[in-house]
Amino acid sequence: MAKKPKFKITPIGGLGEIGKNMTLFEQGGQGFIIDCGIMFPANDMHGVDYIIPDYRWLEERNDIKLHGILFTHGHEDHIGAVQHVVQSFPDVPLYATPLTTGLLKVKLKNARLLDKVIINTFDAGDRIEVGPFNLESFHVCHSIPDCVGYGIHTPHGMVVHTGDYKFDNTPVHGRKTDYAKLASFAERGVTLLMADSTNSDKTGWTQSEAVIDGALDRVFRNAKGRIMIATFASLISRVQQVVYAAKKHKRKVCITGYTMSEYSKIARKLGYLDVDDDMLVDIGRAQTLPPHKVVFMVTGSQGEPSAVLGKLASGRHRQLDVRETDTIILSSHPIPGNEEMVYRTINRLIQRGADVIYDPIESVHVSGHARQEEMRLMLNLTQPKHLLPVHGEVRHLHLHAKLAVDNGIPRDNIVVIENGTTIEIDQKGIHVGERQPGGYVFVDGSGVGDVGPAVIRDREILARDGFMIVSVNIDQHTGKLIEEPRIVSRGFVYLRDAEDFLDQIRDNVTTLLHNNRSANGNRRIMVEDSLSKMIYSETKRRPMIFSIINEV
Amino acid sequence: MAKKPKFKITPIGGLGEIGKNMTLFEQGGQGFIIDCGIMFPANDMHGVDYIIPDYRWLEERNDIKLHGILFTHGHEDHIGAVQHVVQSFPDVPLYATPLTTGLLKVKLKNARLLDKVIINTFDAGDRIEVGPFNLESFHVCHSIPDCVGYGIHTPHGMVVHTGDYKFDNTPVHGRKTDYAKLASFAERGVTLLMADSTNSDKTGWTQSEAVIDGALDRVFRNAKGRIMIATFASLISRVQQVVYAAKKHKRKVCITGYTMSEYSKIARKLGYLDVDDDMLVDIGRAQTLPPHKVVFMVTGSQGEPSAVLGKLASGRHRQLDVRETDTIILSSHPIPGNEEMVYRTINRLIQRGADVIYDPIESVHVSGHARQEEMRLMLNLTQPKHLLPVHGEVRHLHLHAKLAVDNGIPRDNIVVIENGTTIEIDQKGIHVGERQPGGYVFVDGSGVGDVGPAVIRDREILARDGFMIVSVNIDQHTGKLIEEPRIVSRGFVYLRDAEDFLDQIRDNVTTLLHNNRSANGNRRIMVEDSLSKMIYSETKRRPMIFSIINEV
Repeated sequence: MAKKPKFKITPIGGLGEIGKNMTLFEQGGQGFIIDCGIMFPANDMHGVDYIIPDYRWLEERNDIKLHGILFTHGHEDHIGAVQHVVQSFPDVPLYATPLTTGLLKVKLKNARLLDKVIINTFDAGDRIEVGPFNLESFHVCHSIPDCVGYGIHTPHGMVVHTGDYKFDNTPVHGRKTDYAKLASFAERGVTLLMADSTNSDKTGWTQSEAVIDGALDRVFRNAKGRIMIATFASLISRVQQVVYAAKKHKRKVCITGYTMSEYSKIARKLGYLDVDDDMLVDIGRAQTLPPHKVVFMVTGSQGEPSAVLGKLASGRHRQLDVRETDTIILSSHPIPGNEEMVYRTINRLIQRGADVIYDPIESVHVSGHARQEEMRLMLNLTQPKHLLPVHGEVRHLHLHAKLAVDNGIPRDNIVVIENGTTIEIDQKGIHVGERQPGGYVFVDGSGVGDVGPAVIRDREILARDGFMIVSVNIDQHTGKLIEEPRIVSRGFVYLRDAEDFLDQIRDNVTTLLHNNRSANGNRRIMVEDSLSKMIYSETKRRPMIFSIINEV
Repeated sequence: MAKKPKFKITPIGGLGEIGKNMTLFEQGGQGFIIDCGIMFPANDMHGVDYIIPDYRWLEERNDIKLHGILFTHGHEDHIGAVQHVVQSFPDVPLYATPLTTGLLKVKLKNARLLDKVIINTFDAGDRIEVGPFNLESFHVCHSIPDCVGYGIHTPHGMVVHTGDYKFDNTPVHGRKTDYAKLASFAERGVTLLMADSTNSDKTGWTQSEAVIDGALDRVFRNAKGRIMIATFASLISRVQQVVYAAKKHKRKVCITGYTMSEYSKIARKLGYLDVDDDMLVDIGRAQTLPPHKVVFMVTGSQGEPSAVLGKLASGRHRQLDVRETDTIILSSHPIPGNEEMVYRTINRLIQRGADVIYDPIESVHVSGHARQEEMRLMLNLTQPKHLLPVHGEVRHLHLHAKLAVDNGIPRDNIVVIENGTTIEIDQKGIHVGERQPGGYVFVDGSGVGDVGPAVIRDREILARDGFMIVSVNIDQHTGKLIEEPRIVSRGFVYLRDAEDFLDQIRDNVTTLLHNNRSANGNRRIMVEDSLSKMIYSETKRRPMIFSIINEV
């Protein structure tokens, strides 16, 4: 009997981080990808707009034919890099559920790539053939409708990829996580479960989205004036919940911000957002309504200064302002790293007189990810032989592994790996294989990957202490200074208050060059060294220092 | 009857922020200060080392005699600016409890100011006379021993300042918050309560420090190898708890890091840290002990790269490394803004193989501040007529006010103000008075206040996109370029990979200057405008651009 080929899985992103999810599946030279998302930069990744998975090695592989790029759901950390991937892998069709397709189309249209791509739309629960591969999609609950996971048939048993999930028994859109399909996978034999680890440090169950209805109802009942609710543009189910609350409390809904408006339109068109025509008003009409008759949906719940809520907080919104009678709800949790900006926004809104409601003041947000008991349920439903924890920082992956051991999976059957590491499945089990680069590709402006650690380090130094450039013209024959040194400096000292200090610097350079006017040494380095020492001793700061010596 | 003079209170720092606490109390030209702390910079305050309260207006006031600077406890946000304040107000004596005095002395010694200051040490509970003012100190529980609040006698009733407090009924050092004294103030009539607002968004009671004993015991029992515990250098009671756990589990204790060692020495000398001589080992001796016989106390629980834990995480500690059998405990919560660095540190330690324990995995830390029920208890014990919420962001102050209204204080008797605002107390009650500047004074290197918003904005731009300087020499008579333009750039593109682009820039400048060689206009601005446009169009980035035109 011929040996069956190995089935290989390479997480390209999503391990050791929450963001930029992307995984390659392959067997015998055929392959497909699940998800291609972005990650938002940490506070010390200066100037980076976003980060995409490092799949450059895959572009260079000629031994593999890609048959499809499949998506689990429409969040940025799963679809955000689509415009990069379709340019890197032209002619590879996309596969997604209807809402995810709608959101992909918005992104591809903005990138002027929509006519270059084939998108195959399927319904959650459908079987899909992707080249030689057979997959069974299954519906999962998360914080956006139309999410799926995939059961992947391999010669060595099924591989189940959960996508982002929670077991919400009372989801806003009614459709539950597909318990039956997951159980049926178990019957057929799951060799490997790849499962969401985001909340593995949290005990118990994630609350149902239904708890938010109660909180919204209380807030709507008490609000005397306008209500403004900030959440993620893609949180369609939250928009739905607000619409229902508004209907009950006889308020009209005004959806503001480009992305939230676009996403809501798509969701409505595809039947994922149930709202009567006469419930929706534009911002102009909303302004004419009595305050207690309107609710605004806004973006900026992560404290982004350029989003609607950020502009309201700093008084920079062109059409809206914050009034003393406004009730403002932040229906979100700060993503780690954003806490400072979120609380700053809240403080400013309160300073403008608004009543600001956020968790823990009211339960106005719940996570979209499974907690520990749900993770156990997933293990018990699918009964996998092996586990690959995905979607989480290192600490989440390790805690997920620990939980699985407690739940009866042998430690040796659990693989905690890093991005770029291939795992191979064959008759005997699972093995950790080769390692490809799995790091960050920074997108900065129109540049993809041209800004690397060296540039970021320079930005870090500039951010801390700024720079100073001294330019001098000296006579090439006599070595004498022709005119006073010129100084350009930013981010170091406030120049207008530092004239004495600048004089001191000019004197230092002038004296140094005068004393060394016949020196053969490198004047540039001499000037820079001398200035560095003098400046550190005077200020205890280390700006970048450059000199330009023109011998004329 | 002569009208009694107004008693005035001006919070200089600590309102609208958690940090840099400082309050001025005055009456009829006499005054004193309580606390003078620092605040740590937000992530976008680039290059700032720390922030001190803006008391420059007080230095300029000739109409007031200061009789003392009193401290509530030894945390940085209450004592950290002492070296600045004693220089600004020489000859004003300090007042503090023994441990706080000890910590003040460490700071003043490091700043070479110890011989310039008189420190009056008193015990918690003592009455103190500060010039014409009478105060009664009272012990409060917090997360460092020897904390006090103050009852201040005024002609218009008592003003009670809680300091940082919680009502811990089983504190590590045994001494409780002084319920009796607080109740006695109520009997004598409290006109104003100034109370800690830090945890006003948290329901219930803050847990006792005693819960940590249980958690430490579990961790110590399970740890097979070395244990390392990270916490704040000043968290003396946590060091004490670790010492007790180590004693029970027969481990020696090694306290690492300069500040933690210094603070522990002081605390031990003054009797606030109970540890036998033979329990303590230095790092050299600790390395020779069997792994299960030693516990290391380390700094860096906020993810600071330069502290011991940060160095361990990145493998840069000169004497210690992380081993697979190590158990590392983070006995702290991330201060908002530090989450990213804290979790990065945890992830790196796990990557090095350590078992890392942090809240919520185990209850290895509790807050030192009162939650809502304790705030109610404080109100009920002291029965103040008026409330001034202090020590909190805007959102905390407002929530504290709301809680007080629920608790029966009339809304008009509560003043939520900003730093620099004076409140005046007279027979009739409390009035909001004048406003002084109450902003940030940045300390950067040896500069105090010379770095302001303009420099920080420049650093922000430099951090995002770097800078580029083009220097050209042109013939002053013909306007012709004498040599190729020189370019200096950092933080914008990686220069080694950008030679083509730099050529393009040199061409752009050369052509522009050639075409305008007889122009009278400002060549500098012309070059900078042209480059800005070209660079933005090519890269979608906006580095700072400067040109230096030498006419020779």
